[in-house]
Amino acid sequence: MPQLIADRKDVDFVLHEQFQIAELSKHGRFSEFNKQVIDMIITEARTLAIKEILPTWKIGDRVGCRFENGEVKTPAEFKRVWKHLIDGGWFAPSVDTRWGGQGMPKALSIAAQDYLVGANLALLMVAVLNHGAGRLIETFGTDNQKKLFLKKVYSGEWGGTMLLTESESGSDLGTLTTSAVKNPDGTYSLTGSKIFISAGDHDLTENIIHPVLARIQGAPEGSRGISLFLVPKIHVNGDGSLGERNDIVCTGIEEKMGLHGSPTCSMSLGNKGNCIGTLLGEENKGLSAMFLMMNSARLMVASQGLACASSSYLHALAFARTRIQGTTPGTSDKKPVPIIRHPDVRRMLMTMKSYTEGMRSLLYYIAHCEDLKSLSKNSEEKERYQNRIDFLTPVAKSYVTDRSVDVCNIGIQAHGGYGYTSEYPVEQLLRDVRITSIYEGTNGIQAVDLLGRKLMMKNGRLFADLMVEIGRTVTESKKLTSVQALADRVETAVERLIQVADHIRRIATGREAQKAFAFACPFLDVTGDVTMAWMLLWRAMLAVEKPSTGARKGDVSFYEGQVKSAEFFIRSILPVTFGRMDSILDTCGAAVEISDESFGGL
Amino acid sequence: MPQLIADRKDVDFVLHEQFQIAELSKHGRFSEFNKQVIDMIITEARTLAIKEILPTWKIGDRVGCRFENGEVKTPAEFKRVWKHLIDGGWFAPSVDTRWGGQGMPKALSIAAQDYLVGANLALLMVAVLNHGAGRLIETFGTDNQKKLFLKKVYSGEWGGTMLLTESESGSDLGTLTTSAVKNPDGTYSLTGSKIFISAGDHDLTENIIHPVLARIQGAPEGSRGISLFLVPKIHVNGDGSLGERNDIVCTGIEEKMGLHGSPTCSMSLGNKGNCIGTLLGEENKGLSAMFLMMNSARLMVASQGLACASSSYLHALAFARTRIQGTTPGTSDKKPVPIIRHPDVRRMLMTMKSYTEGMRSLLYYIAHCEDLKSLSKNSEEKERYQNRIDFLTPVAKSYVTDRSVDVCNIGIQAHGGYGYTSEYPVEQLLRDVRITSIYEGTNGIQAVDLLGRKLMMKNGRLFADLMVEIGRTVTESKKLTSVQALADRVETAVERLIQVADHIRRIATGREAQKAFAFACPFLDVTGDVTMAWMLLWRAMLAVEKPSTGARKGDVSFYEGQVKSAEFFIRSILPVTFGRMDSILDTCGAAVEISDESFGGL
Repeated sequence: MPQLIADRKDVDFVLHEQFQIAELSKHGRFSEFNKQVIDMIITEARTLAIKEILPTWKIGDRVGCRFENGEVKTPAEFKRVWKHLIDGGWFAPSVDTRWGGQGMPKALSIAAQDYLVGANLALLMVAVLNHGAGRLIETFGTDNQKKLFLKKVYSGEWGGTMLLTESESGSDLGTLTTSAVKNPDGTYSLTGSKIFISAGDHDLTENIIHPVLARIQGAPEGSRGISLFLVPKIHVNGDGSLGERNDIVCTGIEEKMGLHGSPTCSMSLGNKGNCIGTLLGEENKGLSAMFLMMNSARLMVASQGLACASSSYLHALAFARTRIQGTTPGTSDKKPVPIIRHPDVRRMLMTMKSYTEGMRSLLYYIAHCEDLKSLSKNSEEKERYQNRIDFLTPVAKSYVTDRSVDVCNIGIQAHGGYGYTSEYPVEQLLRDVRITSIYEGTNGIQAVDLLGRKLMMKNGRLFADLMVEIGRTVTESKKLTSVQALADRVETAVERLIQVADHIRRIATGREAQKAFAFACPFLDVTGDVTMAWMLLWRAMLAVEKPSTGARKGDVSFYEGQVKSAEFFIRSILPVTFGRMDSILDTCGAAVEISDESFGGL
Repeated sequence: MPQLIADRKDVDFVLHEQFQIAELSKHGRFSEFNKQVIDMIITEARTLAIKEILPTWKIGDRVGCRFENGEVKTPAEFKRVWKHLIDGGWFAPSVDTRWGGQGMPKALSIAAQDYLVGANLALLMVAVLNHGAGRLIETFGTDNQKKLFLKKVYSGEWGGTMLLTESESGSDLGTLTTSAVKNPDGTYSLTGSKIFISAGDHDLTENIIHPVLARIQGAPEGSRGISLFLVPKIHVNGDGSLGERNDIVCTGIEEKMGLHGSPTCSMSLGNKGNCIGTLLGEENKGLSAMFLMMNSARLMVASQGLACASSSYLHALAFARTRIQGTTPGTSDKKPVPIIRHPDVRRMLMTMKSYTEGMRSLLYYIAHCEDLKSLSKNSEEKERYQNRIDFLTPVAKSYVTDRSVDVCNIGIQAHGGYGYTSEYPVEQLLRDVRITSIYEGTNGIQAVDLLGRKLMMKNGRLFADLMVEIGRTVTESKKLTSVQALADRVETAVERLIQVADHIRRIATGREAQKAFAFACPFLDVTGDVTMAWMLLWRAMLAVEKPSTGARKGDVSFYEGQVKSAEFFIRSILPVTFGRMDSILDTCGAAVEISDESFGGL
């Protein structure tokens, strides 16, 4: 039976050999998470994913969510899975035990997510919102708000959402018009309409807690006048019991390309003039509160991308091993072979493999930096980790989701005609993963964040520190003759990326800034490529001597495969990156100089 | 009202200014196709597409085809469109008038297809099969076969298909097992099962004529033992009237990612031992007969890709012009703007624009070569055109469909969250276009054809001749100072492509051939990129002086846009191509050297 969600060997390799997360158990907070416990948790997530969640994946797509009589109905099979997720504590695995979480390292929790999300992205999308809503309440809530809502949200007993987008306020939330008026009792009455609200309504929980962005009457215009409110679907009495239905309703759900198991709701607040919420955090600080949560939400979206890519790769691999078709070009043997013997299929598989592995390392790495930051007692060190997280988050969100779309696209191609049919899972994986490049800030927004903010912050130090960190891996791997040549190429890549960053930063702060911003995405892409090369070199460095130094027999091919992934990426894909760097250095202005009319179509 | 399928100015520009197809009317065969008639025909196709076909496009996706009681039902609205296509003679526009065709130049017919296909790919996919089936009958049929079937198929009164694929014979047709036994009356009894048969059954016509690949009992194994048969759904009597139902039935249709309006059928032949067909062409020459038709079928698939890309571009453009969101980065103005003012959106639009335009030129060019070949009386010249067609066909099929998938993917991204919803057409365009990279020979098969056959044929002359031809455009455009710098870059690209082709050909014929074939797709991609650069340079050369030499005021912005497309592609995308060329020259063997086990997943 082939593995079809995430390759367990690879997950273990990243957790234990690349980042050695069991070392964290030396610190009190994570003391119970020794290697044995870590392995047990991954096994538990994997078993739950394969046995209980995966069977609901296609149902989510085919049956989907329906909007009936003003309410959202999810597929019946989802309810049982939701119960399992509650029982397993999977709504808040990395949250403090005080609030009902499991208190596990973030790197471990993201590895577990690989399995859970990979088994049913749509359903887990509904579930993951609990974490975001919970974090907002935990960070900004009053004692009473925490008492009433927090454990229920973190446990999964109630649902959580985020009500940001309006029809005229998407990427630019500063223009939103949902309004709030303070009542004599200190609560607020909200009025407005929201769209694209994931899990805005559903029948998986008896209540749903909505953090809502709105503007208090009389507040300043723009993003400085936005506040955050907590609006329950059903009011909660002081003793925690449920009260009356609040005046917030779902008015419809979107028909979408994929992710049919996750209802995307239009929400109407205060239609009857009676939508009551409480302020969460300070007045007019709503947007910055929300952005504080963005890092982890964006990392989660990247992890959704990876889960689909990983699954698509393993499906394509299993298909290529069993599908007999044609003879191998470049040989004289005329006997039909499994298509994994075809060089072009191997190219596709290697592309999928190297991206999947590199992306897994990158995401676990960011999560690991979060863990190290949270443990550090040294403020400089803390800042260094935070810098790395800040810089890598837009890269991870955008690069990982875009490459995951690519990988899922290749997954279809590797299946030939079968890949286009719903009989095989790869077409759904592409339809599902496609949203990850869009939501939680489009990838274009991420690129502008990287170029316009993160690259500029602290006089470029975030970027410079990262380059130093990559340089460390390069220096270390140069000591091993077997990967030295690859390390040299990554070193060149770092040097060139520094040159490109200097160039684009200069243009972005000059008179021709717009030209630079037309290269925001290419700049993010080359940064991502170099990051991939770093991660894959790191892996190869750890793996290359293992086969000759006593690796278990069953692991030898895995380690050899690590070196091949690095070789493939660094020799076949990095040259393309260099070409893209040349293109950025040339900074052609055509896209910004062309007149709107010259685009045609009128 | 924006244009939403193909930009009429662009279509006209390619037909009249780039290829001057009205010049063909100097030749007797095309004498009636002067400029006025050409323009009238395009207008007719465009009106039909917009008024009658486009309204059925979403219905095809939503309602789709159903399989009920052993028969395929198409959406009711399709029938009226089919009638319009018959009335307009759109099933065989470029076919000889003797057989009921319109006898128009192929370049004109492919331009008309831009509109028809762009308005409903699925329905036109059903229709386009008539042309392929008709061509087979026209080329290989006996007088009686032609008399019985040909006009009915070319007119669209009856349907046509191609029965090639079997569940174990996809890319490798040589292993197919459908068998034929000769009857005493000279007919054949066929037995077997076929899959992935587009329009294998439907209710749009009263009869369907199936060309079928099968193996005559006792024929040699492999591809040299395959014959072609003509198998009608309903037998046709000598007087042309319909007889009894033949023993060929649809047993089900595929559920697919998209193209729901085109039924993909499983077909069973001879279930009751009574599937009767006649031999089409010679015994055991079936596969080569089929391959003769492949060039035009592949060009048609490329044209399907272009139609979707073109439509997605125009939709994204219209959205970007009207959607107000955010302020422009790099400016101090804080007023919300249409998103076309955002540099990153402009980058997306320019990418879509330049690919769409270059691909349109490439496809019309190949069709134009067909026209010039058919008119030429000089056998050397004829061969030269055929060489160009042979070489460019796999490039067009693979490169154009892959880039069309990319363009349609960007089309979603340019719409933000809306692009993922079915309210906007771009998600369907991606789901529909995705099949074009797979059917009619997967793009991997095209790449192997290019590297393993076309590049080798006639000692490399096909490739060399094309490079000379591109060189001509470079030389000519160098005379214009305003595009000279771009021409220099294209010249470099040609020189580098020659170097890459020499290198990869040497490896492909040596002991490490497999390594070369792992770069078949990248080689096709760089060839395609250089071809795009050629086409865009050609366009820019024609356009650049028009604004200052009396172009109509309404056309100035179009001409300026042509120069910008060339500048964007040659300066921003071609450097990436150079990087990919470096990667090919390095010819890393990792993908073929890695052990099957090292791919993991076990």
